Amino acid sequence: MQHFITNDFLLTTSTAKTLYHTYAENLPIIDYHCHLSPREIAENKHYSNITEVWLYGDHYKWRAMRSCGVSEEYITGSASDYDKFRAWCRIMPKLIGNPLYHWSHLELRRFFDCDLTINEENCDAIWALTSEKLQSPDMTAQNLIRRSNVVVVCTTDDPADSLEYHMQLAESGFATKVLPTFRPDAAWKIDKKGIAAYIKRLGEANGVEITDYETLKTALTVALDRFEKAGCRVADHGFDLPTFAVPNEYAANEIFKKAIASDGAGISEEEVTLFRSQLFRFFGQQYVARNIGMQLHMGVLRNPNENMFKKLGPDTGFDTIMGPSFMPALAALLNYLNECNALPRTILYSINPTDNAAIGTLCGTYCVGDGSGVPRVTQGSAWWFNDHIDGMRDQLRSYAALSALGNHLGMLTDSRSFLSYPRHEYFRRILCNLIGDWVEAGQYPADYDALAQLVVDICYNNAKNYFAFEI
Amino acid sequence: MQHFITNDFLLTTSTAKTLYHTYAENLPIIDYHCHLSPREIAENKHYSNITEVWLYGDHYKWRAMRSCGVSEEYITGSASDYDKFRAWCRIMPKLIGNPLYHWSHLELRRFFDCDLTINEENCDAIWALTSEKLQSPDMTAQNLIRRSNVVVVCTTDDPADSLEYHMQLAESGFATKVLPTFRPDAAWKIDKKGIAAYIKRLGEANGVEITDYETLKTALTVALDRFEKAGCRVADHGFDLPTFAVPNEYAANEIFKKAIASDGAGISEEEVTLFRSQLFRFFGQQYVARNIGMQLHMGVLRNPNENMFKKLGPDTGFDTIMGPSFMPALAALLNYLNECNALPRTILYSINPTDNAAIGTLCGTYCVGDGSGVPRVTQGSAWWFNDHIDGMRDQLRSYAALSALGNHLGMLTDSRSFLSYPRHEYFRRILCNLIGDWVEAGQYPADYDALAQLVVDICYNNAKNYFAFEI
Amino acid sequence: MQHFITNDFLLTTSTAKTLYHTYAENLPIIDYHCHLSPREIAENKHYSNITEVWLYGDHYKWRAMRSCGVSEEYITGSASDYDKFRAWCRIMPKLIGNPLYHWSHLELRRFFDCDLTINEENCDAIWALTSEKLQSPDMTAQNLIRRSNVVVVCTTDDPADSLEYHMQLAESGFATKVLPTFRPDAAWKIDKKGIAAYIKRLGEANGVEITDYETLKTALTVALDRFEKAGCRVADHGFDLPTFAVPNEYAANEIFKKAIASDGAGISEEEVTLFRSQLFRFFGQQYVARNIGMQLHMGVLRNPNENMFKKLGPDTGFDTIMGPSFMPALAALLNYLNECNALPRTILYSINPTDNAAIGTLCGTYCVGDGSGVPRVTQGSAWWFNDHIDGMRDQLRSYAALSALGNHLGMLTDSRSFLSYPRHEYFRRILCNLIGDWVEAGQYPADYDALAQLVVDICYNNAKNYFAFEI
Repeated sequence: MQHFITNDFLLTTSTAKTLYHTYAENLPIIDYHCHLSPREIAENKHYSNITEVWLYGDHYKWRAMRSCGVSEEYITGSASDYDKFRAWCRIMPKLIGNPLYHWSHLELRRFFDCDLTINEENCDAIWALTSEKLQSPDMTAQNLIRRSNVVVVCTTDDPADSLEYHMQLAESGFATKVLPTFRPDAAWKIDKKGIAAYIKRLGEANGVEITDYETLKTALTVALDRFEKAGCRVADHGFDLPTFAVPNEYAANEIFKKAIASDGAGISEEEVTLFRSQLFRFFGQQYVARNIGMQLHMGVLRNPNENMFKKLGPDTGFDTIMGPSFMPALAALLNYLNECNALPRTILYSINPTDNAAIGTLCGTYCVGDGSGVPRVTQGSAWWFNDHIDGMRDQLRSYAALSALGNHLGMLTDSRSFLSYPRHEYFRRILCNLIGDWVEAGQYPADYDALAQLVVDICYNNAKNYFAFEI
Repeated sequence: MQHFITNDFLLTTSTAKTLYHTYAENLPIIDYHCHLSPREIAENKHYSNITEVWLYGDHYKWRAMRSCGVSEEYITGSASDYDKFRAWCRIMPKLIGNPLYHWSHLELRRFFDCDLTINEENCDAIWALTSEKLQSPDMTAQNLIRRSNVVVVCTTDDPADSLEYHMQLAESGFATKVLPTFRPDAAWKIDKKGIAAYIKRLGEANGVEITDYETLKTALTVALDRFEKAGCRVADHGFDLPTFAVPNEYAANEIFKKAIASDGAGISEEEVTLFRSQLFRFFGQQYVARNIGMQLHMGVLRNPNENMFKKLGPDTGFDTIMGPSFMPALAALLNYLNECNALPRTILYSINPTDNAAIGTLCGTYCVGDGSGVPRVTQGSAWWFNDHIDGMRDQLRSYAALSALGNHLGMLTDSRSFLSYPRHEYFRRILCNLIGDWVEAGQYPADYDALAQLVVDICYNNAKNYFAFEI
Repeated sequence: MQHFITNDFLLTTSTAKTLYHTYAENLPIIDYHCHLSPREIAENKHYSNITEVWLYGDHYKWRAMRSCGVSEEYITGSASDYDKFRAWCRIMPKLIGNPLYHWSHLELRRFFDCDLTINEENCDAIWALTSEKLQSPDMTAQNLIRRSNVVVVCTTDDPADSLEYHMQLAESGFATKVLPTFRPDAAWKIDKKGIAAYIKRLGEANGVEITDYETLKTALTVALDRFEKAGCRVADHGFDLPTFAVPNEYAANEIFKKAIASDGAGISEEEVTLFRSQLFRFFGQQYVARNIGMQLHMGVLRNPNENMFKKLGPDTGFDTIMGPSFMPALAALLNYLNECNALPRTILYSINPTDNAAIGTLCGTYCVGDGSGVPRVTQGSAWWFNDHIDGMRDQLRSYAALSALGNHLGMLTDSRSFLSYPRHEYFRRILCNLIGDWVEAGQYPADYDALAQLVVDICYNNAKNYFAFEI
């Protein structure tokens, strides 16, 4: 079984091998979107066994286990860590074709130097070996990041966050930049119970008493100042806007005051839509002024299993891909922001791979010859459920066909785990192999200087330049 | 032309060949969804010429002929059987890339031992050869099933059906289990003329006078008892529910009484929706209690050519793939059933291949760690218009990437013909070749024990276990 | 770099090479849908530099440049022709995977006999070489068409057009037939300012004073007579019909009179829908009577960037793929036309590749066994944003799986440029390679007579027969 995950894993042509090994493999990683905990980085977290690393917080794995009818006892329940790991090993042979198969084996090889196949038979050997390795100082959060050659990590943070761990890390001399991402989604859930308390907390965190739309903007502006000071280069929004309504600041103010008075009760869908549209205008203007990139994540139906939501809460493996109905609203919003000079550099991610073509062309619609040298609006890498070979390859092919592959911003982990960096390796291999396939089929010139430039741009330079990271 | 449909048809790697020939090829067939006539099996139907077999009832072929501008005379009209067959042979060379090309040639080889290419030149030779072979007792309905190594056939039956032929077959000593599938679609067409007569018939068949929702449930319960006694392990619904409405038994009863009084007149779309949602709750509870699997078939626009519908009726080759608008209703229904403990093992089929990703993730949403060892909700094989190489391969890849391939329930014919079993061979070859491609590209370990298990599970064990067939 | 765009470009099997070089390569071209200017053909336009040819009117290239953040100055602005060309060369290496890469290099080879790779380094050499060649009489509009072996060109024309250039060309002895396509979209924009003036112009051009729906039909009938006399064999509509309304001539007349009186003001969406549905009935009847094919182009969201629309107008590179919401309306319309005996030969094109399956099956719905030998309703070639290798290959595979590949109508340029004919070469290579892949994988018989027939039909015969061009 020696030929699984060899040095040339996923590289089937000599062009692919050259591009990967000579150019891509050793490039530093810019992980511009993830859900790592800045606190865990600052406190330099370590683990005592592989279940803590792999199964405590990874809802991708939970979902796969549930799909195999594993009892919840062994997933999020009270079974022992060993028994949970054994349950995970047991289903692995069923996961051929699922990216978890590759990610898990890559992580085992890259961080634990273990090339055992994960299955029930090897469970004990892997458990013992990883338990021992996890004692090493090499296996702390900061060292895992350092060993992975990561130069920038963008975490995902609420405007009410103090950013204390980011500041602590900046002062600590930790070489990797750990930068906050501005994710203000909580501020626009004005139809949800809890909005009043959140707004209060947002005000306190930013030294502003929020009583109306004006003071909300003031607090968010203070937050943006703080984020920018902590190195923030990018914002992120879950794009949940079924329709777009032309903003109206007077109405937005009335709606907002009503929402904090009623704690979200009695706010209609129309009011939510108008308020969010208004707020998008504010965010867009701020991001343009600060040259901050805006990410929009779309198409997820969140928490559609209400029973399990009540038991386990959000982000526990029950979300789903659901319909592209947001597209007209998205076009209307981008058009409006464009007219207001409030359209920043924008990255569009859809969870539904069938949106690739529509998004690929929509990006072109709002690239307006601005002389920046980069695509003002661009599609983000294959996201979440699409981070498998077919999904990434399809996204790259669609991006190339509808735009200019040379501008692609490359991979991001979107992960909660310190062991997820091999996803960048995975992407780079897939990218190099795609280009290799094309070139060796005679579809493109075998001009290695040009190809190397393309690869290095996509794997590193483009993200660096697009977000203007200071590295 | 010797290299067409060889022993290694569709098998391009040595891993694929080993997996297929050593493990998959000789497995018995469980055909858990088809439209065979139990009467024709019981009466052991035979045919006098190839047109009777191939063209009398096969709307796939009719459709292909119409696409080539063949006159209806030669399709469903009064032309002679020979002339119809000749017309079919004549268009075959245009059908490269259509699964009918492969199915027809496979059937000719497997049942008639004839490896002629189907075209006008060979028409007479094929006609003569098949006419002769059809005289053989080997070519009766029961023998065709037996020769195909089929251990279970699930037909599709109405709750008003007497199931006499199923019972007759069970008593006859015919080795293949011929089991009814509970398909109660007629009972919820409460806005269609004819509902009153149908409900009367349903009542009579089950010894219940149906006057309201309560007695409707009684009759359906009796029917389910009868079906279960006849070995029914699976139900089937055409999922025609544009929106989901929270059920309300009082309202459902009023609607139902109104519908049988008016024979469907004056029933609004809202009333249909509420009634069907209510009935789904009843069905779900029944299936859970009886451990019967529920199939949902989605996304077909039926009879959109009204002219031809008036002439030829339903299922004559005019249906079409149309939009994924049912997805939010489906999520709402599954969520509701889940909350009522009324979500049975469920298989989702969509006619639109663009739904693969959404369905693949929706399945994960309602797998809840139940310890069953199987996926509570899972995607069915590529269906109907998608039963071609690309469609099946895409469905397998999507299933694998979004769930666990090892749980896939394998193929079904969905057919009205006794000659359709090579579709299982077709699927098995495609499956083995996909796995072979992956393994020989170094993407998965060449662990043949694990791979064999995967193949045997998908081709046989999984359907057996999922539906708990007693074989 | 010799292996890029060799004689066997895109042909990876010996079957593909044989099919292409022996059968497809030298077939004449029927370009049944393009946007060439009949005036430029009649006046035998010539160019002084490559920027005039490539960048003056090609919004595909503009879009790609904007995606790379090139300044509008170098796209549609006041930079020199040389500087614009240099800007274009500079971004070319980023366009790997985009059809512009192949189209541009093919055009350079086929028309300028230049095999330089387009990049900044080669910019000056290409500029000099092309400038010189453009002086040659070989490089005039008529000679470019003649050299490309084009036998029919169908331009796209308004019913108010005099068709003077078509008549002039017919009389001139220019061997290629330059035929008008009837595209009456302007006549149904009854909710847009300018409709009154347009209707006046339409009346004048056809010698009819248009005052109501009856006289509108008279004028359009005169126009159709004129178009038919000029050789028109095909009509074209941008299918912009969100819903279908059963036509009502009385209401249509009232709506139309109101629209010309108010110049489009106060016309509701419902009124537009009813009017267009009514007009479709008229057009369908006319096309059936005249045996003219009807093209429907669907799914584009036009001019969604209002800022740039105000600056540059339509067709400048800002349109986008947007949703398949038209499908139910399309099915309803086709069903209605079918019932009225007003459904002509119809070609459906969708901009969204995710519609392939739905359209592929919808075509089958309205092929009704008419004995014509051709598909009454059929899917058009991959369109616009989909004219890349993956897009064309996917469309061919989907067409084959859902219909009969042997009926495919082949390629069209859809272009405004006299240099676009290599797109036919591109298509033919892709087609032959697809068939070659299938045959050499043992999926279809290596019956070269049958395969050659298939290829020649798709590349030439089918379009000739379908539209009944007299060649």
